[in-house]
Amino acid sequence: MKLPEMLELLKLIYEERMPFNRLLGMRIVTLTPTDVELRIEMREELVGNFVREILHGGVISSVLDVAGGLVASVELFKHLEEMEREEVSKHVAKIGTIDLRVDYLRPGKGEYFTATGSVLRKGSKVAVVRTELCNEQKVLIAAGTGTYLVG
Amino acid sequence: MKLPEMLELLKLIYEERMPFNRLLGMRIVTLTPTDVELRIEMREELVGNFVREILHGGVISSVLDVAGGLVASVELFKHLEEMEREEVSKHVAKIGTIDLRVDYLRPGKGEYFTATGSVLRKGSKVAVVRTELCNEQKVLIAAGTGTYLVG
Amino acid sequence: MKLPEMLELLKLIYEERMPFNRLLGMRIVTLTPTDVELRIEMREELVGNFVREILHGGVISSVLDVAGGLVASVELFKHLEEMEREEVSKHVAKIGTIDLRVDYLRPGKGEYFTATGSVLRKGSKVAVVRTELCNEQKVLIAAGTGTYLVG
Amino acid sequence: MKLPEMLELLKLIYEERMPFNRLLGMRIVTLTPTDVELRIEMREELVGNFVREILHGGVISSVLDVAGGLVASVELFKHLEEMEREEVSKHVAKIGTIDLRVDYLRPGKGEYFTATGSVLRKGSKVAVVRTELCNEQKVLIAAGTGTYLVG
Repeated sequence: MKLPEMLELLKLIYEERMPFNRLLGMRIVTLTPTDVELRIEMREELVGNFVREILHGGVISSVLDVAGGLVASVELFKHLEEMEREEVSKHVAKIGTIDLRVDYLRPGKGEYFTATGSVLRKGSKVAVVRTELCNEQKVLIAAGTGTYLVG
Repeated sequence: MKLPEMLELLKLIYEERMPFNRLLGMRIVTLTPTDVELRIEMREELVGNFVREILHGGVISSVLDVAGGLVASVELFKHLEEMEREEVSKHVAKIGTIDLRVDYLRPGKGEYFTATGSVLRKGSKVAVVRTELCNEQKVLIAAGTGTYLVG
Repeated sequence: MKLPEMLELLKLIYEERMPFNRLLGMRIVTLTPTDVELRIEMREELVGNFVREILHGGVISSVLDVAGGLVASVELFKHLEEMEREEVSKHVAKIGTIDLRVDYLRPGKGEYFTATGSVLRKGSKVAVVRTELCNEQKVLIAAGTGTYLVG
Repeated sequence: MKLPEMLELLKLIYEERMPFNRLLGMRIVTLTPTDVELRIEMREELVGNFVREILHGGVISSVLDVAGGLVASVELFKHLEEMEREEVSKHVAKIGTIDLRVDYLRPGKGEYFTATGSVLRKGSKVAVVRTELCNEQKVLIAAGTGTYLVG
């Protein structure tokens, strides 16, 4: 498998084979060697606050965590040789979040939300990724910094 | 309302009136002036990793965030005068997570998980809370530190 | 005092009246309504690792913490009316770090280091600031995210 | 070298061969397989706030970072075979902080401060350590959580 196919497989795994991602309704709208964008639609079940219709903090941290993991995965794959489909899966299964900080900046109000991220550093063992969640009006809702195990 | 009734109302709000808590199936098993314990049952929908049946990191951070918010709420209520039901609700709606760090220590393997927490400091504006998630065998799965707006 | 004079006073306070900033040799090279840049020279006393001549992690977190505090202060002052010199000092003395995350990305190798930062959000009570430390060759050494009490 | 000698060497390295630790005046008062305690005396140069005589946030994060590193080192050495002096030094030089969160809980007022810590988890690659800083009256001043590279 070459990089484009690896990314295709990565998308499939994240969207279809991670049950909680499906429960939240996460979709990967962009997945290229340079850009990752996740999207989640607002819906009643994802609300946290009983007075105002805003996204639960746990949904926010979930989406940022997944976005960071995806960014770290893409970064890892860019530096790997071609490999078999099974090997790719094995690599993905090993990538894990070591720690994550989330800053909840503004109420999660919106129709849909997009998460993006960028690598601060990728080493042989860990990658550090900064992520951001915005609503459809580009209002920054939350920011994250995560450390991911990649080797 | 006195403290015991406030805590009863707090439990009701967190379990019944926060849709995402219901989606995750969070239940508050202890809520006293000194102890808070949340519980969540493992089920297929909450799995993150497609190879191993372990809890999604987002579920873990969600539960720790809620546990921390509860601990901060209890701490706030302990220092407030008696108040009307409506006022209590208003207070709860205003409590919010400013930031949260989660350390994912071990794979989220288990039948059910319990989250507990303790206040590091409660000031007039913010409270800092440390939280922990264990499985039914008391294995520490994750630890959190959160800053909550309380005034 | 108007904003430019406030910033002048802020610079004086941070450079001259905070003993530990002097011990580290921090200098503010830029302090405008939109930009903050701190600078620190490498010297033997600031080394952490005994084998390689790299900056101690504590120096890095110190500089990022101060840079974040400065960015939060500037943001606060931009939204305040004109005020007396004494009042400005009082405001500065009240600004405090609530929490800080630092990611140590690369060895702190260099002749001098500069820290910059930007506000993620400024509310009435807290401000959240992201900061970065680079060496003289623009290599990113460390990144920070801090929550500051501003009101 | 056996463990007691390794710890003796560790103490020597941290106190004598890390220049910034010396600048701050850190001393290791306890270093056993189960307990680590660092101590730092208050002095004018370590003050941050120009109005009140309190410890600079950077000093606090520095001490917590070093305490966490020491705890991680002890944990690593407990699981290693006997080794030569040179090898021990090499191991110590490789241990590094990946990221650190510090919560500044109360003003750093006191005559002297002690930092302690405990391991949340030690894996083959990273260790996660929680730390605390108290003054001589056992008032909790700050708390930290750090991820350290240990392999």
